[in-house]
Amino acid sequence: MAPIIFITGGARSGKSTRAEARIREFGGPRVYIATSRPEDDEMRARIAAHVAQRGPGWRTVEEPLDLPGALRDTDGDGGPCLVDCLTLWLSNLMWAKRDWAANVAALEVALEARQNPVVLVSNEVGMGIVPENALARAFRDAQGRLNQRIAACADEVELVVSGLPLRVK
Amino acid sequence: MAPIIFITGGARSGKSTRAEARIREFGGPRVYIATSRPEDDEMRARIAAHVAQRGPGWRTVEEPLDLPGALRDTDGDGGPCLVDCLTLWLSNLMWAKRDWAANVAALEVALEARQNPVVLVSNEVGMGIVPENALARAFRDAQGRLNQRIAACADEVELVVSGLPLRVK
Amino acid sequence: MAPIIFITGGARSGKSTRAEARIREFGGPRVYIATSRPEDDEMRARIAAHVAQRGPGWRTVEEPLDLPGALRDTDGDGGPCLVDCLTLWLSNLMWAKRDWAANVAALEVALEARQNPVVLVSNEVGMGIVPENALARAFRDAQGRLNQRIAACADEVELVVSGLPLRVK
Repeated sequence: MAPIIFITGGARSGKSTRAEARIREFGGPRVYIATSRPEDDEMRARIAAHVAQRGPGWRTVEEPLDLPGALRDTDGDGGPCLVDCLTLWLSNLMWAKRDWAANVAALEVALEARQNPVVLVSNEVGMGIVPENALARAFRDAQGRLNQRIAACADEVELVVSGLPLRVK
Repeated sequence: MAPIIFITGGARSGKSTRAEARIREFGGPRVYIATSRPEDDEMRARIAAHVAQRGPGWRTVEEPLDLPGALRDTDGDGGPCLVDCLTLWLSNLMWAKRDWAANVAALEVALEARQNPVVLVSNEVGMGIVPENALARAFRDAQGRLNQRIAACADEVELVVSGLPLRVK
Repeated sequence: MAPIIFITGGARSGKSTRAEARIREFGGPRVYIATSRPEDDEMRARIAAHVAQRGPGWRTVEEPLDLPGALRDTDGDGGPCLVDCLTLWLSNLMWAKRDWAANVAALEVALEARQNPVVLVSNEVGMGIVPENALARAFRDAQGRLNQRIAACADEVELVVSGLPLRVK
């Protein structure tokens, strides 16, 4: 089966750049699955910067909620896919009051079925002080569990620190 | 002497599961020292989930403050001991206005005297933005110092990331 | 050229102690560049503790803003230099409404020109929950970018966890 690569790290640690470098190891047309919703200026600026950084040669699919479906639909492209990122996907699911754990289970199934490589970007959000806000605590718990489950499915796991990968699996 | 293994990581990173896997390397009856106080529903739910996950074959000791004493008392059981976790222990000490540094010194003495293996779980809490709250800053400073001191005593140190261990020592 | 060593980690993770250990690998007079402003009691206490920990044999230079200049000026001392830390430097630049990215570019130039070893300490601040405060978000973004850029210039990069170094580069 095609490799599944899981890239995690802190904010602005260079995860996306690292994920793009890993994607370049694979041939075929590249797909970028953006899970973000370009709803505010800060987010739009980040998305534009990422698009400029990737350069041409990518097909971009915007899918804030049905990531398992997007992985299935783009498998027919016959090339590698970059998912950026699982943290925004989780956030979208929680805002939409979806069952995030069921969606993670569906993601596991979609990953196992993929014929072409996938690189998934996620975030470390649990290494600070316990948030005072209960919703933030629930989010970091869910993010931690999602990271464990997808890392368990992955063939390779990297923690990006200051732009550099630490191999975890 | 019996090995001392220190497991650290972020919230929901899989530290407890990893600690239980390490404990299974050792023979003899297993002791679980819980430092939590089951005072609210969120904590009770977490404790119940951990008990269910461990399964049978453990003696559980609840000790929120006198961890050095609990390590001495359970050494006579003749098997390995899992301490989960040092972060709640530190929090309990600080809430009770105890001298946490003196208690860490007592823990070092108790660890050196142990005849049977110990696996200790702690948390990384210092990799986020500086908290605005002075008490939270004091806590993360104390947690950082505690982690340094116990890691210095340990034979092995692991950082758990997305459920996977990174060997640090 | 002389080596550039970049040491990062969380709060109270033992970064400064590790940086001092690395500096001791090099001969010649030692320079300590303190980027902090001793403006409040908490900071004064931390500085005094660091000075006591380093012991004699260091020349201390206090430079909150012009770090590139301080690296050039102290190169003539003919020995290694410890910069502690880039996080306070960045914070000072942002408070003073300076262009931090231009200053990071100037730091890159100064590091490339150094004839004598430099050990730089920085912080991981991006592994917690997204801060609610926009200024805190801007700071952690800038810190992440700074860390990537200086780590790219460095010959060695270490992540300090519980007082122990994880080699990243």
